[in-house]
Amino acid sequence: MRVAIYPGSFDPITNGHMDIIKRSCVLFDILIVAVISNPNKIPLFSVNERIELLQKAVAEIPNVTVDNFEGLLVEYASKKNAMAIVKGLRAISDFEVELQMALMNRKLNPNIETLFMMTSYKYSFLSSSLVKEIGKFGGCMSQLVPDIVLPDIKAKLKNS
Amino acid sequence: MRVAIYPGSFDPITNGHMDIIKRSCVLFDILIVAVISNPNKIPLFSVNERIELLQKAVAEIPNVTVDNFEGLLVEYASKKNAMAIVKGLRAISDFEVELQMALMNRKLNPNIETLFMMTSYKYSFLSSSLVKEIGKFGGCMSQLVPDIVLPDIKAKLKNS
Amino acid sequence: MRVAIYPGSFDPITNGHMDIIKRSCVLFDILIVAVISNPNKIPLFSVNERIELLQKAVAEIPNVTVDNFEGLLVEYASKKNAMAIVKGLRAISDFEVELQMALMNRKLNPNIETLFMMTSYKYSFLSSSLVKEIGKFGGCMSQLVPDIVLPDIKAKLKNS
Amino acid sequence: MRVAIYPGSFDPITNGHMDIIKRSCVLFDILIVAVISNPNKIPLFSVNERIELLQKAVAEIPNVTVDNFEGLLVEYASKKNAMAIVKGLRAISDFEVELQMALMNRKLNPNIETLFMMTSYKYSFLSSSLVKEIGKFGGCMSQLVPDIVLPDIKAKLKNS
Amino acid sequence: MRVAIYPGSFDPITNGHMDIIKRSCVLFDILIVAVISNPNKIPLFSVNERIELLQKAVAEIPNVTVDNFEGLLVEYASKKNAMAIVKGLRAISDFEVELQMALMNRKLNPNIETLFMMTSYKYSFLSSSLVKEIGKFGGCMSQLVPDIVLPDIKAKLKNS
Amino acid sequence: MRVAIYPGSFDPITNGHMDIIKRSCVLFDILIVAVISNPNKIPLFSVNERIELLQKAVAEIPNVTVDNFEGLLVEYASKKNAMAIVKGLRAISDFEVELQMALMNRKLNPNIETLFMMTSYKYSFLSSSLVKEIGKFGGCMSQLVPDIVLPDIKAKLKNS
Repeated sequence: MRVAIYPGSFDPITNGHMDIIKRSCVLFDILIVAVISNPNKIPLFSVNERIELLQKAVAEIPNVTVDNFEGLLVEYASKKNAMAIVKGLRAISDFEVELQMALMNRKLNPNIETLFMMTSYKYSFLSSSLVKEIGKFGGCMSQLVPDIVLPDIKAKLKNS
Repeated sequence: MRVAIYPGSFDPITNGHMDIIKRSCVLFDILIVAVISNPNKIPLFSVNERIELLQKAVAEIPNVTVDNFEGLLVEYASKKNAMAIVKGLRAISDFEVELQMALMNRKLNPNIETLFMMTSYKYSFLSSSLVKEIGKFGGCMSQLVPDIVLPDIKAKLKNS
Repeated sequence: MRVAIYPGSFDPITNGHMDIIKRSCVLFDILIVAVISNPNKIPLFSVNERIELLQKAVAEIPNVTVDNFEGLLVEYASKKNAMAIVKGLRAISDFEVELQMALMNRKLNPNIETLFMMTSYKYSFLSSSLVKEIGKFGGCMSQLVPDIVLPDIKAKLKNS
Repeated sequence: MRVAIYPGSFDPITNGHMDIIKRSCVLFDILIVAVISNPNKIPLFSVNERIELLQKAVAEIPNVTVDNFEGLLVEYASKKNAMAIVKGLRAISDFEVELQMALMNRKLNPNIETLFMMTSYKYSFLSSSLVKEIGKFGGCMSQLVPDIVLPDIKAKLKNS
Repeated sequence: MRVAIYPGSFDPITNGHMDIIKRSCVLFDILIVAVISNPNKIPLFSVNERIELLQKAVAEIPNVTVDNFEGLLVEYASKKNAMAIVKGLRAISDFEVELQMALMNRKLNPNIETLFMMTSYKYSFLSSSLVKEIGKFGGCMSQLVPDIVLPDIKAKLKNS
Repeated sequence: MRVAIYPGSFDPITNGHMDIIKRSCVLFDILIVAVISNPNKIPLFSVNERIELLQKAVAEIPNVTVDNFEGLLVEYASKKNAMAIVKGLRAISDFEVELQMALMNRKLNPNIETLFMMTSYKYSFLSSSLVKEIGKFGGCMSQLVPDIVLPDIKAKLKNS
């Protein structure tokens, strides 16, 4: 049984994340989308809100589950018997930080691979931060986040 | 009538900014230097101080005006009937962030172009942050900011 | 009168080039698409063939003309009274080479600006070399080059 | 059955390639190491020599086979019913070219994923070109190529 | 007498820092490891703690001393009669920020050179931030920091 | 006695090279400027011509000598008892290739350090290739190459 983890802040989920989820889940038997609970960063959406949005967005995909974790990613992956960590790379993104994390995680646990997939070019400019900025100023967010969670995200951004 | 926007924090204006203003204003009928009022970032110079410094610095250039805005850049540009946004690229700079913004802005309004110009190599190392750091420790700032605003910037940095 | 040059090898023209031509021609009174005749590089399409393909592709755009030149770009631009050189930047491209050329050209003639525009993300992966490689192996080229020149390019690639 | 392709020139195989082969073969049921027969590039080792070296090097790994192909990678992958293409990324490598190829291949066939893995940092500086250069001048190649093919590679490089 | 400065936050010292210290000290008569006292950033280890850790770690190297400074680096270097500033470059690191600082420092004092050395590939993923993150979650830190200061760093991280 | 090597093609020498030579020679007792004789690349200037130009250009600097070598750089450096290899990094340059070479050379001989210096921003766009291209088309080369060798380089480029 091949299990993979797709970790992230997902604050909130974007269509770029959905693109990676849909494409990577066919490569494994189970894909766990894992929300990072980072006590040092103050997210806009709480861990529970982020999990709910993700669950709505992946409800139709049978082999994808949503979870959250705190602490070292490789330890979480190991506990879940995952063989791989999936990461989306945007052509325009923090490539170097991702590589540094991948090398470090490999050092900490060489049995867990990090696999990078290119985010579709349609979403190469998209990030949770941009979604939040556009939403805050009332810009149009359709095509940026999954339709099914668009109302929830709009409501939250209007009130924040 | 070709109108362009040169947006930025300008906290404070540097000779790198002046270089882009002087070179880009000849390409358009009107160039609006637009100070971003970002409520989430605490600048050293207030919006009004930044506008005053810019107005002093561009006083001699007939087709350049200074303004400020809050919210989405493309909406501001659209309101001003601008056809282009001008951005300076330093050889050594946050190239990827600029590209991401340009693609996003084009997604939000495909009628407004982002044009990148290379900052002159003389200013390739220069940024507002470095000016503030050098000023704070009493380093020499001539050649880094326009002469006409040097005393104002020095005074402010001494007292902060 | 604002004249700009869009220089390139155009061996052959792609939809990425067309994207830049259509978006930049509105910023100037005249846009000259200028084929570089580089005696040291052996192109697949001759200078005349490349000019013909470009002329077909831009036939509907009133303020765009096609030309070719040999020698230093800034001297050609100066002879044409151009104030600007337009360059397309792909998010994934030889950014550094472009910057080096821009700085060098500015050193040779500070009166001619190089303006960079982001190629639309749809074409961020597209280059003349990839078109030739795909065409050579019989891959599908629609959406990669303008429809009106697709038969010419296909015919040429089949016979080369 | 999950099949993946690991394509490359392998001119000749290095320990960096072996690192990717060993780590990626556990993620799939079958991994096909596929030598690219590029008629335009003159390799040092012929296609047959490159296949032989690879076969020796992977002889002990049950689910890895060696093959070669000409033409478009995605068409070859499709013929082999592969769901993924595996690529090694060195921290210091031609990242942008790889991303461009991945986006293009996805455009040509969206059903085949390109997965990037970080080459182990021990091999981050290693390439077939460097191996050939070091070998040509009689430098030490142990640790650079698999032990089992070291004599063959040495012999070839001495005579070229 | 050739004096060089190796400046940094060293919050805390890692094996990547030790690698640069050991390799650069042979190039100069005296190497001063200089802790930056930045009043704007809140470090985990105090300046005194960072100096103590460094002093333990370099105790065996005769021509290395540890110091701290506040203000402009080039002024500190000039006061110490240093001819060079040594910087470690990780293959995966903030290359551009380093170049910007080097050009700025050269502008402020052209008599002091910045010399970059590649951090050994073994430590290319290593940073003080990662050490702190791993330590905080109880991950294994041996091989990441010098053995002699490992207990001190562990103790501090457990209590923070 | 501290000896360093500054290796390169120097086809031909530029003011960017002179900048590195003048700044690095004060850091060592002897600096050897070493022309690479690469039998696989056809230079414009022969090895002897390149050595002559360099000798003219450094004639006034007492601790700089000019030499040439074939084969592995680290072996040449070791034969010359050099402790360091000096490399100029342009802000806009082939950074990754340089890092790869540095890591490889360190692997081949860990006793020889590679030190990178930033080329002065004035020369950040300058390369031997650009000098040759500009010279070929009769562009102005003063400020690009040392005055003392300008006539020789002009003469050669006119006749090639």
